Amino acid sequence: MPDKIDQTIKVARNHHSAFISELSDFVSIPSVSTSPEYQEEMEKAAQKVAKMADWAGLENIRIFPTQGHPIVFGEWLHAENQPTILIYGHYDVQPVDPVDLWETPPFQPSIRDHYLFGRGASDMKGQIVAVLAALQSIRQTTGAFPVNVKLMVEGEEEIGSPHLRSFIEEHRSMLSCDVSLNPDAGMIAPDLPTLVYALRGLVFFELKVFGPEHDLHSGVFGGVVHNPAQALCEIIASMHDENGRVTIPGFYDHVRPLSSEEREELSRLPMGDDYYLKQTGAPQLWGEPDYTPVERVGARPTLEVNGLFSGFTGQGTKTVLPAYAMAKISCRIVADQEPDEIHYLLRRYLEQRIPSTVRWELNYFGGAPASLTDPKHPAAQAMKKALELVWETRPVLKREGGSIPVVGDIQKILGADSVLTGFGLPDDRIHSPNERLHLPTWFKGIEALIAFFYLMNTLQE
Amino acid sequence: MPDKIDQTIKVARNHHSAFISELSDFVSIPSVSTSPEYQEEMEKAAQKVAKMADWAGLENIRIFPTQGHPIVFGEWLHAENQPTILIYGHYDVQPVDPVDLWETPPFQPSIRDHYLFGRGASDMKGQIVAVLAALQSIRQTTGAFPVNVKLMVEGEEEIGSPHLRSFIEEHRSMLSCDVSLNPDAGMIAPDLPTLVYALRGLVFFELKVFGPEHDLHSGVFGGVVHNPAQALCEIIASMHDENGRVTIPGFYDHVRPLSSEEREELSRLPMGDDYYLKQTGAPQLWGEPDYTPVERVGARPTLEVNGLFSGFTGQGTKTVLPAYAMAKISCRIVADQEPDEIHYLLRRYLEQRIPSTVRWELNYFGGAPASLTDPKHPAAQAMKKALELVWETRPVLKREGGSIPVVGDIQKILGADSVLTGFGLPDDRIHSPNERLHLPTWFKGIEALIAFFYLMNTLQE
Repeated sequence: MPDKIDQTIKVARNHHSAFISELSDFVSIPSVSTSPEYQEEMEKAAQKVAKMADWAGLENIRIFPTQGHPIVFGEWLHAENQPTILIYGHYDVQPVDPVDLWETPPFQPSIRDHYLFGRGASDMKGQIVAVLAALQSIRQTTGAFPVNVKLMVEGEEEIGSPHLRSFIEEHRSMLSCDVSLNPDAGMIAPDLPTLVYALRGLVFFELKVFGPEHDLHSGVFGGVVHNPAQALCEIIASMHDENGRVTIPGFYDHVRPLSSEEREELSRLPMGDDYYLKQTGAPQLWGEPDYTPVERVGARPTLEVNGLFSGFTGQGTKTVLPAYAMAKISCRIVADQEPDEIHYLLRRYLEQRIPSTVRWELNYFGGAPASLTDPKHPAAQAMKKALELVWETRPVLKREGGSIPVVGDIQKILGADSVLTGFGLPDDRIHSPNERLHLPTWFKGIEALIAFFYLMNTLQE
Repeated sequence: MPDKIDQTIKVARNHHSAFISELSDFVSIPSVSTSPEYQEEMEKAAQKVAKMADWAGLENIRIFPTQGHPIVFGEWLHAENQPTILIYGHYDVQPVDPVDLWETPPFQPSIRDHYLFGRGASDMKGQIVAVLAALQSIRQTTGAFPVNVKLMVEGEEEIGSPHLRSFIEEHRSMLSCDVSLNPDAGMIAPDLPTLVYALRGLVFFELKVFGPEHDLHSGVFGGVVHNPAQALCEIIASMHDENGRVTIPGFYDHVRPLSSEEREELSRLPMGDDYYLKQTGAPQLWGEPDYTPVERVGARPTLEVNGLFSGFTGQGTKTVLPAYAMAKISCRIVADQEPDEIHYLLRRYLEQRIPSTVRWELNYFGGAPASLTDPKHPAAQAMKKALELVWETRPVLKREGGSIPVVGDIQKILGADSVLTGFGLPDDRIHSPNERLHLPTWFKGIEALIAFFYLMNTLQE
């Protein structure tokens, strides 16, 4: 098997310019999902994915319409008794504003200093092309794939994937698989191949506190009614203790503790206090003192105020005693917390704590559970080995603080864990002007993916 | 003297239609100070005040231009050895929006059910005409006034009187007086003549709390930095104890305590819990348990959040960890607190309490001190007697929770206390559609003002 890996990698190395050409064509399509004006370009991008899937050697390629943007599917199922891997991707990209900050036009890819610049180059058109380039190289070398492969590429990730879950539910058997490969995560640094094995989940709320029936004159009525802005601040302030721990009873009950092995692995990540101070520009770090920053972000749940609004917020002054105050609140949750459980605990807390001097209302916008793939999972082990083979260094294991809802959906609906990796770098400026992809890292990534597919074959020695 | 009062009241009663006609003309002028489009109408309104001053019998009438809208002045100084009364008023009115809620056009005064409807009828064109009608009636009866009179009517009260203080400072000797009459206060009820003897002052602040350098992804960074919206809530929540008392050290040090005599007087006001519950629509009252609502509003300082803003406040959700949070905060202060003192105490409190995990900034917008006229002041006593004479009931003494900065300015710059009264009623809908003036109460008010001017003559028996 190592022979075949080597052989295929050699083939791939002879095709770098072809891979760049595929990627350039793909990045040239302004598939911005947030704006209706790009409707036609979304179709074009889906067709480009279908064409590349064919180029890679997949079969039964179809473009499924949805209520929103289409989903591209393809498969290759001739590896008998071998596992089936579902590759996930999204062909849509973020808007390009502010466009005048781009050094070259966002949809005219250009290469400078080993980087390919363009919107979507890193997030995640480059990652999709990497997977398809790996498959194409294998097919060119051996005429077949060592495992069964399915591909599902959506066009609505940047707008919250509103139609993906129902698509997966409706196409359970078509999408059935043993494991999913999600290359939408990234690397810590060019020399640190990274395997993400956990993602936090999310729960969204809006809390409104109502006082008087209408805005009051703060002179005529100040001192006799509970100001709802103050009451809101009081309840929010009560939700954390002085150590940054959430005080809502039961909040941590189902948090899966970190093993000492995990903590040791996580401590290898070059993301200490300095890293977070530099990334955030905050005057000082904050949070549960018993956990390192990396542990707090990856393995601890949070309760975060995303927005506040009440009364008068313009220039100058207005002596109003506001009728209501609102806070947007969300929790990042970890395994094994459940969105509905958090909703229940928060509501019970508010019921017990908000005084009867005000009225209140909690809107629950739902959420997504966390996901966690055991790093000992055979697919995770295969990816780890593949990364190590190419980079010649032990990969780091990371828990990601953000959320990728599709990972939870695939786990729930299809019963398959995900292997999360990707070959973008922290300074790729994704979602910002001058997004770029580091080509040397990308080429290595293609090679690691080649190794991964071979290593997933259970007949390997 | 009572003979002359009776005589003059009879004269006044014969001129009700003339008074209504003056008021109607005055209300017809759309002197909305908030909008530049009414510039010409503001001039017209000032000229109308000058004309009515002449009609009332004043002399040396002048219209002083300011950087904003003009100020009208007039005087009559032939009462040798008698006190000089400076009458304050404002000829500008609030905007009329929403205009479609008016049953008759706001600047076409119409009389229905003993009310005259129109913007400014109660606040405070009606009150200005009442004073001038009283003077006119006295002049018609006796050919002279029993006291010296000065008149100062501005056109910018509804926009915070930005040019009045410097005008008073520049015309100190022209405006010098023994006492000021301010008819911009109102009555509790038609059968309860009211004398306001205290007003609260005001101090304005804006507090900004800064965390990270820019908005952060709440997944990638949630748990390692102090959320500034949360930090803001924490500091605001700490500023009151569970009894609604402000916790800032020193805050109450200069609050002049209520005398038992005052508390007894204030207890006569028909403004108990039910009154405030009905007026505010709040689910329950709130505030320092050792004081009645009327005492809390009139004699106790407050710290009120007027506005809150942070992060994402639109529809739906956004997982942002905001870079900053802002609160508009103002204090209603009472005698003998000073705005600068409160600023000092608040700043010191923030310095000691806000943790170093965030940065902060306090903007101080200045303020105005409270004012308090001893109810035993001769002018207050004269007004009390005058009200009692006309209404045949003992007037109530009231501390007003709101602020009228001109009262403090006149006290500070001219050294003169103010007598505050007025004949508007709580349901006059000032600042709202269908503003109105209750004419029977207004006619009584004119009679009380007649009595007041006579009773201010020190030669009265």
